[in-house]
Amino acid sequence: MTVLILTCEEDVTADMVIVHLHGSGVPVVRVDPADLTGGVSLSGEYVHGRFRGHLSAGGRLVSIGGLRSVWVRRPGPPAGRATQPSPWLTEEAAQALYGMLRGSDARWMNHPDAARQARHKPWQLRLAQRCGLPVPATVITTFPRAAREFAERFPDLVVKPVSGAHPQDPPRAVPTSRVAPDTDFAAVAFGPTLLQRRIAKRADIRLTAVGERLLAARKATAPDAEPAEVDVRFATSPSPWEPVEVPQRTADAVHAYLREAELAYGAFDFVEDADGTWWFLECNQSGQFGFVEVETGQPIARAVAEWLSRPAPGETPGVNGVRTTAH
Amino acid sequence: MTVLILTCEEDVTADMVIVHLHGSGVPVVRVDPADLTGGVSLSGEYVHGRFRGHLSAGGRLVSIGGLRSVWVRRPGPPAGRATQPSPWLTEEAAQALYGMLRGSDARWMNHPDAARQARHKPWQLRLAQRCGLPVPATVITTFPRAAREFAERFPDLVVKPVSGAHPQDPPRAVPTSRVAPDTDFAAVAFGPTLLQRRIAKRADIRLTAVGERLLAARKATAPDAEPAEVDVRFATSPSPWEPVEVPQRTADAVHAYLREAELAYGAFDFVEDADGTWWFLECNQSGQFGFVEVETGQPIARAVAEWLSRPAPGETPGVNGVRTTAH
Repeated sequence: MTVLILTCEEDVTADMVIVHLHGSGVPVVRVDPADLTGGVSLSGEYVHGRFRGHLSAGGRLVSIGGLRSVWVRRPGPPAGRATQPSPWLTEEAAQALYGMLRGSDARWMNHPDAARQARHKPWQLRLAQRCGLPVPATVITTFPRAAREFAERFPDLVVKPVSGAHPQDPPRAVPTSRVAPDTDFAAVAFGPTLLQRRIAKRADIRLTAVGERLLAARKATAPDAEPAEVDVRFATSPSPWEPVEVPQRTADAVHAYLREAELAYGAFDFVEDADGTWWFLECNQSGQFGFVEVETGQPIARAVAEWLSRPAPGETPGVNGVRTTAH
Repeated sequence: MTVLILTCEEDVTADMVIVHLHGSGVPVVRVDPADLTGGVSLSGEYVHGRFRGHLSAGGRLVSIGGLRSVWVRRPGPPAGRATQPSPWLTEEAAQALYGMLRGSDARWMNHPDAARQARHKPWQLRLAQRCGLPVPATVITTFPRAAREFAERFPDLVVKPVSGAHPQDPPRAVPTSRVAPDTDFAAVAFGPTLLQRRIAKRADIRLTAVGERLLAARKATAPDAEPAEVDVRFATSPSPWEPVEVPQRTADAVHAYLREAELAYGAFDFVEDADGTWWFLECNQSGQFGFVEVETGQPIARAVAEWLSRPAPGETPGVNGVRTTAH
């Protein structure tokens, strides 16, 4: 049973995971959907009530029925590198590839529908609330009056995009910014705006969830940090990321979140306040983990590899971690 | 509890359903997401572990927590008619609107994720097989050799696009066509191609599923019909659509399909062969039903209205079909 990794050519994070998969002897096929109809071919046959499908990449043929798991890392747009690319060809190739994979019994990290749902920040906030995670008071609105009333109740605010970083190439990230006290909210009428109470933080927390495993890292805020530097991605903090234990209550809530969201992987961002409370900011279902692993030494890539190489239903685990297919 | 209908301005099918909803006294709000930040506003607040959200359209304010059901008919692109439309604004507005609605407890016809999955034809074929529906032998391939071998086994073939009609405005439909016997399949290498054994049909069947209700219609094939006229949408048949009973085995399989696909609505296309067998061609999760209702008199719009107006959990059904909210 094979692990299928869907990602682009240059992806060192995938490389890190593949090293572990090779180390445990699990067969891996790495495919960039952008290479479809070029270096990647596919075929699926529906005859007499049965489906038989194959993917061919880099001279290797893999059966879709023989997939153990699919890791959707950073796949390119299907047929994006075809000789004559077009939106129509991309749509046809996407339907063919994902349509066949969706019909397989492989486990997904993450399933495309779960991934899509998980990107909706308003839905994230609601789910986090329901799972018992503390969520800073937030409003998402196109009503200037609602924004003004919210700013009266919570005068210390940050603003961020509703949709977060855009899945573009190269990806653009819009930093979270502090809202000036005399802000005029009239422009809120022109586009939904997300305002959130600023948490006076003493640290940022990145919690990486891989299946049931939770690996958390903490980056202390410098005592002399500018309160305007709210976004850890753009701040210049001298403190490194360091491993930190996950409080049991947070762990339970995060497990509930992942279960409800049907996610096998999630990168949670929290801020820690002066009381030690972890406030939920967001969960990025495809968040990077390389920088955390490099700074903390936490074995995230290995955890991903272990999740991907778990035996499929009907497969018997072999000895010494080497899996054999039950035929 | 209110029914929310997401659709564009000119949608006579929605009009038909709204007439029935008005008739039974169920509150309805009709919103085109394209009008966001114009005629449509939204606001959602996450404070103290609770969510309170509102949509405003046409001077009416509706609570997101008070939605009974959401009918995703033919919604325009969010903020598509804004004063300064842009892909970024559309993304922000989509995340805000659907992100809030996804967090509600309303029932969906159909949920966006179920709808998205259901559009994948390779997945449809596999699911239909698994549910026990007869599926004509099909291949989807980018291997010219696989196409040639398939054509040797099944010489009488049709070809159709993998992704079906495109969700564009105006929608383009690509007709299914017969494959000439001397076809050279070399071009298959340039894009995934769907080839399917042609069923010699004596009728087309359109089965409209609304929740648990199945309404089927049959259009007899003219005895002198050209075998090349395989696509009922483009054929000129003198026979009308007429109501037809659904065989129990087909009904069971269709119910299983809808359950597995998590669809509340689906328009199934079958062809009936000389033995009376219904062969599954596809299930369109947003298929039109107006033309069937007009020709057959089947109460499809009423069935949709009844499904949408079912009481929500925690709501008590009133007398004479009029529902009252339990407060």
